Amino acid sequence: MDLLTHDDIETLCLGATLLGTGGGGDPYVAKLLAQQALATYGPVRVTEPGDLPPDALVLTTAVIGAPTVTLEKIPAGTEFVGSVEALASYLGKEPVAIMSIEVGGLNTLVPVATAAEMGLPIVNADAMRRAFPQIEMTVFTLAGLPAGPLSIADEKGNQCVFRTTDNHVAESLARAAVIQLGMANAISCYPLTAGQIDEHGIGGSLTYCGQVAGLLEAVQRADEGAWERFLTESGSVEFFRGKVVDLDRRTTAGFARSTVILEDLDGTGSTMRIEVQNENLIAFRDGEAVITTPNLICLLDCETFDPVTTEYVAYGNRVIVIGMPCAPEWHRPGMLELVGPEAFGYDVDFVDLPR
Amino acid sequence: MDLLTHDDIETLCLGATLLGTGGGGDPYVAKLLAQQALATYGPVRVTEPGDLPPDALVLTTAVIGAPTVTLEKIPAGTEFVGSVEALASYLGKEPVAIMSIEVGGLNTLVPVATAAEMGLPIVNADAMRRAFPQIEMTVFTLAGLPAGPLSIADEKGNQCVFRTTDNHVAESLARAAVIQLGMANAISCYPLTAGQIDEHGIGGSLTYCGQVAGLLEAVQRADEGAWERFLTESGSVEFFRGKVVDLDRRTTAGFARSTVILEDLDGTGSTMRIEVQNENLIAFRDGEAVITTPNLICLLDCETFDPVTTEYVAYGNRVIVIGMPCAPEWHRPGMLELVGPEAFGYDVDFVDLPR
Repeated sequence: MDLLTHDDIETLCLGATLLGTGGGGDPYVAKLLAQQALATYGPVRVTEPGDLPPDALVLTTAVIGAPTVTLEKIPAGTEFVGSVEALASYLGKEPVAIMSIEVGGLNTLVPVATAAEMGLPIVNADAMRRAFPQIEMTVFTLAGLPAGPLSIADEKGNQCVFRTTDNHVAESLARAAVIQLGMANAISCYPLTAGQIDEHGIGGSLTYCGQVAGLLEAVQRADEGAWERFLTESGSVEFFRGKVVDLDRRTTAGFARSTVILEDLDGTGSTMRIEVQNENLIAFRDGEAVITTPNLICLLDCETFDPVTTEYVAYGNRVIVIGMPCAPEWHRPGMLELVGPEAFGYDVDFVDLPR
Repeated sequence: MDLLTHDDIETLCLGATLLGTGGGGDPYVAKLLAQQALATYGPVRVTEPGDLPPDALVLTTAVIGAPTVTLEKIPAGTEFVGSVEALASYLGKEPVAIMSIEVGGLNTLVPVATAAEMGLPIVNADAMRRAFPQIEMTVFTLAGLPAGPLSIADEKGNQCVFRTTDNHVAESLARAAVIQLGMANAISCYPLTAGQIDEHGIGGSLTYCGQVAGLLEAVQRADEGAWERFLTESGSVEFFRGKVVDLDRRTTAGFARSTVILEDLDGTGSTMRIEVQNENLIAFRDGEAVITTPNLICLLDCETFDPVTTEYVAYGNRVIVIGMPCAPEWHRPGMLELVGPEAFGYDVDFVDLPR
């Protein structure tokens, strides 16, 4: 995967949609956007952060807002380069590479498209190896690295630059701007050096994304034993197979929030409730929390094994709910305060996945 | 008034508080802030925009937020130079002078303090010659000049820069940021050249402010015929003398909003209702709109003739309500759409002052 081409996008998109754990935005639009960019500007080189000059600037770009909104307000495409250029201009320094800040449908592939357009390599790392709804929820915050200066750009040419050393303030300023600019915009944050990313980031995110996608593709081809292999090799656990029987969805305070209720397919009356803020955060089975953030809660269609995202989940969907382990880089002091259930306002203890 | 000194501040503060039409922030804090700055950095030179090089950059600074909030969260003082420096740095150009964007207690004197600290002259002009609650409500907007790029700064070192060509978007982005940063911050907007200000601004604002203050000082000294002279020379009309019998005050969506009900002092049962969004916007006498924005609605204490601002008006206050004509520069096409009653959501026609 030294050079990303049209076919790699298909695989990366599947993996990113799975690891987006409900969030990260519409994978279909993401795929078209990246494939169009590669067709126009040529393939994108993947680089390890350690292979870049340690002092060189790496900039990120992503969709910020509510994934439900991206269904109606699809990206124009110009806002992502806009966000990177706004931040580069503010910093007075050009980036040598582009990086995804998280793994998720749009948020893995938009940076690839941006890298193609800017003629830059894409870094094989990120700050979450999943998607999280808030800017401060990165391993960089755990390492004490600032999210700012950061930029927000929209498709009309409006741009915002925020300078702050507090990553929670960064989130609140960016969110407030996004609410004014239509709830689906481009962000460039955590302007770090390649050396900082190499030391504090989650390395190999794109590689990992391709690997889990490969395991899932085998399942989708119905290869023998592929499901068990997928679960074992990704460290995942199947928790539930059920039908969506209730869905409460609201777009408030800059996020897509929802509660999804599943009833099991066996007719035992067992239920699962999943709480969502852009991403799936907590899964309760018969009232008991069984999977919690920062571990991943992923919904897969029972028939196609396609990951089902927040904005597409619908009444009547039959899904498998799995828990996947978060990246080991999360397991550092401060993890639960930053991304555990309480960070989202739930009075629920973190539950590790059964081994 | 070529050079502003300690004593000029007292007079300017009185005039600015009157012309603030309820808004513009606490005059007492404003006075201390400006007098302290002059004591530390020396007097400030007043310049006409036409006396500056036409291409030279002039930057503004002001308090943005809710005047009620400034009572508890008084300015630190550092945020104003911060806002100017943030915008100058973004533009890559230094200002040759500072200007007030509006006339109002804090918002006339804070720029004087900032000019003192930066060693720059203050421009004898502004964009409203009164106070208005929203950024786009300037004669510059009527002239098609952009409010952006603009900056917001707080006392903690957080800074925002917004680039937009739409002055309504400028307002909504700035307001959203201010709500996150504590509802009383510094703004620098409308980065214009001296030539643009000379052509499109309201000239002589500081001079006018000093003149009406002089007329009011005579009233406060109880000079014979001073009240009639004040009314005649300022073109003002007395509409009501009454006692505040009801006050509904709420700080919502980034503004201090209130409804003030007065009952007349003669016992005739006549009432006046004043609707406030930071500034006094419409005065209804016995249900009929008698003074409307953009003309000024000013409350003066019945005994001291001190202007009473939004954040200080209180149950039991005995006040005189006068209507003052807005600057003639407002009377251009687009005035009512931008700053008439309907611009604030009132289904009320503009009423001119009786002559």
